Amino acid sequence: MSVTAAQGFEASGVAVGLKSTGKPDVAVVVNRGPLKVGAAVFTSNRAKANPIIWSQQAVQDGVVEAIVLNSGGANCFTGSFGFQTTHQTAEKAAALLGVSAGDILICSTGLIGTGDGVFRAKVLEGVEQGIAALATDGGEAASLAIMTTDSKPKRSIVTTDGWTIGGMAKGAGMLAPGLATMLVVITTDAMLDAAAADEHLRHATRVSFDRLDSDGCMSTNDQVTLMASGASGITPTPQAFREALTAVCIDLSEQLQSDAEGASHDIRIVVENAASEQDAVEVGRSVARNNLFKAAIFGNDPNWGRVLAAIGTTDAEFDPYDVDVWMNGVRVCTQGGPDRPREDVDLTPRATRLVIDLKTGTAGAIILTNDLTHDYVHENSAYSS
Amino acid sequence: MSVTAAQGFEASGVAVGLKSTGKPDVAVVVNRGPLKVGAAVFTSNRAKANPIIWSQQAVQDGVVEAIVLNSGGANCFTGSFGFQTTHQTAEKAAALLGVSAGDILICSTGLIGTGDGVFRAKVLEGVEQGIAALATDGGEAASLAIMTTDSKPKRSIVTTDGWTIGGMAKGAGMLAPGLATMLVVITTDAMLDAAAADEHLRHATRVSFDRLDSDGCMSTNDQVTLMASGASGITPTPQAFREALTAVCIDLSEQLQSDAEGASHDIRIVVENAASEQDAVEVGRSVARNNLFKAAIFGNDPNWGRVLAAIGTTDAEFDPYDVDVWMNGVRVCTQGGPDRPREDVDLTPRATRLVIDLKTGTAGAIILTNDLTHDYVHENSAYSS
Repeated sequence: MSVTAAQGFEASGVAVGLKSTGKPDVAVVVNRGPLKVGAAVFTSNRAKANPIIWSQQAVQDGVVEAIVLNSGGANCFTGSFGFQTTHQTAEKAAALLGVSAGDILICSTGLIGTGDGVFRAKVLEGVEQGIAALATDGGEAASLAIMTTDSKPKRSIVTTDGWTIGGMAKGAGMLAPGLATMLVVITTDAMLDAAAADEHLRHATRVSFDRLDSDGCMSTNDQVTLMASGASGITPTPQAFREALTAVCIDLSEQLQSDAEGASHDIRIVVENAASEQDAVEVGRSVARNNLFKAAIFGNDPNWGRVLAAIGTTDAEFDPYDVDVWMNGVRVCTQGGPDRPREDVDLTPRATRLVIDLKTGTAGAIILTNDLTHDYVHENSAYSS
Repeated sequence: MSVTAAQGFEASGVAVGLKSTGKPDVAVVVNRGPLKVGAAVFTSNRAKANPIIWSQQAVQDGVVEAIVLNSGGANCFTGSFGFQTTHQTAEKAAALLGVSAGDILICSTGLIGTGDGVFRAKVLEGVEQGIAALATDGGEAASLAIMTTDSKPKRSIVTTDGWTIGGMAKGAGMLAPGLATMLVVITTDAMLDAAAADEHLRHATRVSFDRLDSDGCMSTNDQVTLMASGASGITPTPQAFREALTAVCIDLSEQLQSDAEGASHDIRIVVENAASEQDAVEVGRSVARNNLFKAAIFGNDPNWGRVLAAIGTTDAEFDPYDVDVWMNGVRVCTQGGPDRPREDVDLTPRATRLVIDLKTGTAGAIILTNDLTHDYVHENSAYSS
């Protein structure tokens, strides 16, 4: 059910030929209220696609009536024609729904540079078909329509004390801090005002999507949107809502990680005893972005030297000669020297756990990444995306 | 001849079993004077190997009598025993040469964590054999002994107006800003004082080795050393010396690039019309480190969208919607939109030229990198290094 698990929402997914495969490629999610609260976070890339530029403006008043998403074209670096396409998409959805275009968010994903007249015509057709197909059980169809190279749809639902949060995500690689080629829509029927929605969403993404770094590459089109209908009539405590929202975001992040293009290991980098959370994140990311370490994990090689070489490039507070490193439960390095033999580490399972003990404080962070594989290279070199 | 092309130097390369292949693995380069000037630059990684820690101290007085280099073990993260090994190596070389241990530099390369008693015994044996084998034509042997995964030795010589600069380098991947798994020794018979040697070396490495970024990974063992004997009796102008030294460093950098592990394209990223040199370097590096771009080049795909997505992550001064991008002479993107068709770009040659016009100033920089290939993944996953 994903985005229609919560009361007050309708959704759809339709096929209009943006994907050469003929699979669904336009999704619409509409909030029927009574509240029309919306919040969103966006890619931090300065090279922003047209739908990002539009949505950043549209969400500012905290009111979101609907969101239109398409796969099969990023509408990025497509000039003023591309921006007009986004504008027309919002206008058309607004007219059909009887609302203001400024309350419609737009998301696109696919190849950068795709956004010509054919693309525009198909997207506008998708808006018409998508709004005609809206249904209270349309969440599944919507989650299929936003897929690109994803091997499966990603959905998550938390229901508690009479209110629900449901979400869908697309992304399979190109995931990086600041969010990357990731489209996420989360809905809730909890009572929530716009300021709280924004604050909770920023917290939840900071500790979930923002700590997923599959290949260090940041996209131009990422957007995570939260919409609240208030249809349950229930106002959760801020803490309860934040915990549930964070759980949904972490669940979707882990689904994105495990579907990363070409990966054979899901690597959980746990940084412990850091002087600050920021230090822990910096150290974790330096390892997540180190191609040598990632290739070693692909080869089932517990190469802790590459871990220390990676963290040595950071400014975090620690002594490189007093760091401990565990791989899958085996301490392979202690205090700047080898500890237990490499042969003791079994890296054959897909789930890989790297623990880095910095010994300088009490903060920590978890970064999720993947290994660097032949299939990753193949999937990112054999066709344009 | 590499390091023995200049007068006043002797060198050798011997095999003592550090490499399982039985190939030469210890090199010695000795300065016979009359000057004993030395300067060196080191990895900026905080995780520094024992030879780096030693050499950083030893070079401070600007006097260098000799340098001992070994392959087959990095002597990094090998604890105080490893540091004692480096110390003993310098003491032994000093005793045999009749000089001070504080004027001996040490370099090691190979697997991190390698530096046990067997390693120590072999290195000390290598010092003895290497000093016994010193010869005025030993430069070639020395350049072979420092190779690890290199497919060929790297040497460069410039002779002009009666004085000579000669150098050798090892490295084949793991090359990154701040220098990475790169050992370079450069000798000259020009008259030069220590302050000038240091200044010229820093300039030359800044625009050569420091702009070579094969895979974004920074090593723990990098060192570039310049030794001057003054044996020619000639004092070049500072400008003439700097130009010749820079030429040798750029030549060696390009040899390192073209021997990068598993690469199928040598990519020259030319950033033009930047507001500052720093901006140009930042923009060039962001592309050099983007796995998606590098995989696309491997697939001969002129994916300029990935270039713009990469530079959008930087803080450099430019408008993402007013940047032009050329690939192998074809302008594929202009002012934030597609320009000439992708089909016009021929990416089949190994030499690849990417030009990024930022249109904000008059500064520029060239960054050298490689593509991301199946062979890169294979070579960095199939064995420890």
